[in-house]
Amino acid sequence: MKDIFDKDHEAFGPNNSGLLDLRFGNADFLANYWLRYDPKSPRFLYGDTNLGYAHAFPNADLKQVILALHDRIKNAVTKDRHVVVGVGASQVLQAALYAAKRRGTRHVIARAPYFPRFRHFSEIVGLQFNADTALLRDLEIVSIPNNPDNSFVKPQIKNYIADCCYNWPQYKDVELRDDDVMVFSLSKATGHASTRIGWALVKDAAFAEDMMKYIEVQSCGVSVEALGVTKQILTNQSQIDNSFTIFKNGSDKLKNRWEKIRLAFSGLAGVQLLNDDGMFLWGKTDGDSTDYFKNLGILSVNGDYFGMNDRNHFRLNIGTDVDSFLKLIEIINAKKRATTKS
Amino acid sequence: MKDIFDKDHEAFGPNNSGLLDLRFGNADFLANYWLRYDPKSPRFLYGDTNLGYAHAFPNADLKQVILALHDRIKNAVTKDRHVVVGVGASQVLQAALYAAKRRGTRHVIARAPYFPRFRHFSEIVGLQFNADTALLRDLEIVSIPNNPDNSFVKPQIKNYIADCCYNWPQYKDVELRDDDVMVFSLSKATGHASTRIGWALVKDAAFAEDMMKYIEVQSCGVSVEALGVTKQILTNQSQIDNSFTIFKNGSDKLKNRWEKIRLAFSGLAGVQLLNDDGMFLWGKTDGDSTDYFKNLGILSVNGDYFGMNDRNHFRLNIGTDVDSFLKLIEIINAKKRATTKS
Repeated sequence: MKDIFDKDHEAFGPNNSGLLDLRFGNADFLANYWLRYDPKSPRFLYGDTNLGYAHAFPNADLKQVILALHDRIKNAVTKDRHVVVGVGASQVLQAALYAAKRRGTRHVIARAPYFPRFRHFSEIVGLQFNADTALLRDLEIVSIPNNPDNSFVKPQIKNYIADCCYNWPQYKDVELRDDDVMVFSLSKATGHASTRIGWALVKDAAFAEDMMKYIEVQSCGVSVEALGVTKQILTNQSQIDNSFTIFKNGSDKLKNRWEKIRLAFSGLAGVQLLNDDGMFLWGKTDGDSTDYFKNLGILSVNGDYFGMNDRNHFRLNIGTDVDSFLKLIEIINAKKRATTKS
Repeated sequence: MKDIFDKDHEAFGPNNSGLLDLRFGNADFLANYWLRYDPKSPRFLYGDTNLGYAHAFPNADLKQVILALHDRIKNAVTKDRHVVVGVGASQVLQAALYAAKRRGTRHVIARAPYFPRFRHFSEIVGLQFNADTALLRDLEIVSIPNNPDNSFVKPQIKNYIADCCYNWPQYKDVELRDDDVMVFSLSKATGHASTRIGWALVKDAAFAEDMMKYIEVQSCGVSVEALGVTKQILTNQSQIDNSFTIFKNGSDKLKNRWEKIRLAFSGLAGVQLLNDDGMFLWGKTDGDSTDYFKNLGILSVNGDYFGMNDRNHFRLNIGTDVDSFLKLIEIINAKKRATTKS
């Protein structure tokens, strides 16, 4: 049955009839002003590249660049995949949940510890998340590798969305994923989180089209400036020598940080580390972890937020800026010295 | 009562404790790579200005620039207003509807003809739109001036959101609006639709904060590149001489186009024009307007889409690019000649 997103797409979706298209509200009568106003201004800012709505959707070039990067990194099968681009993995996940809902999904599950916004995204599109009844399991979201603990987990049911945001060499040796719906983000791939670009590789054409319908209505596409920056960054990373990529650089850096982490936390009483790679340190304190770290001058996130029903588990960002990382090591070392002394 | 957006905000919202903040997943360990990699690259693309999440939220500077422009154009009272920026007016409207829902709103109304996505936005946040029962009227959305017909309409009930996207001098002599929630977009202000930036001026601080919570979760903020471009464009438009602004230029251009429209459509049998200014021509044909215009080689949108329950009304974009506009005039003139001949 057609829903509001279909009807919108029918009224405003792409049209190849060749007829004069006066359906939209693009204010392109303003274009000449911007082109004439200041020829010295970067065209990117004042030109005609961001007037109207048409540029707010990824073109074939960008999709090609995305696929080429995956082929290089070998973290996703790209053959016969449709690329859907949205405002961060956040919007892309919502779009995928909407497309699943159209196919009958009503209940979404994720196994703890899980990225907490899976609940929010599910509820935004009108789905129930982690319903109490074990039977209510239409769709799973699984992070590969998992946020917060960086483990590779297998989906429990057949129908699932693969959040592959951390499936880049910085965080773990990548898996060549071949899932039906694989979600990635520029944020975790290259660090450019504030550009707000995410994408999905999708096997089924109709599923991908439904995702696009959702993005068309929810945000009317994606910032053209963000799309342009993304294309430049990913093109660059597809072309330079392997040993100079952000992936190699980031991988070396995080490995080095984890050595420092293990050394610092080794022998620290009352704190257990539960992983040894990835963006996050995932561990457990004897008591309330949030209180424990707050007493040390550190803000952390506890297990409750990741669906663990406890405050002992904690997540700390190891991939933060260098000053914050050094401060963390300094604090932990000072704590150990104080403990040993007393 | 706290909802998921509150809890998220508590866990991840701004914190001024001065403690070492390791709550987020910002991959700032990658920053040095981008700073060192190619010093000749524009910092805007490869620098540290878009790493991490912090830049995906508008800073005080941008808010100031927005308020200054409204002060200049005199289309909105800016005293004691909070500025909320989102991914186009689309997301900002959804955020406002979410904030209204938290305050008890369950049913949204809009008077036809109305912008059709008001229904979609309402349903996305879980509100009922134009319920059949006349009593179910918690909140109104009203476009000022109205899309599609450019008339100034008064809200019918006290609790309303003012969509002021077209309250710029290009489209009509502006009104100095003093509504509780006023929504604007870069798209209609300057034409840069593909930049995907919208904003609201909001009287109530708590309402504005709830809107931000929604934007934090739905898209994790707004593209930093889009925010930067917006700041440059609006700063420029706040500073240059009045007679050189896009507002003056656009106003002259649309007035000129409307003269041509009136001339072309005058004496055309079976078509009635219902307005004479604004971005859109809103009119009525004797039969099905979509068929009528399709026969002429033009794609239009009919009244059904704007809640009119008829296909006789139609909307055409007069503010389109110059070639499309001239083609429209040419088609209408040819139609008149053919009609006169036969």
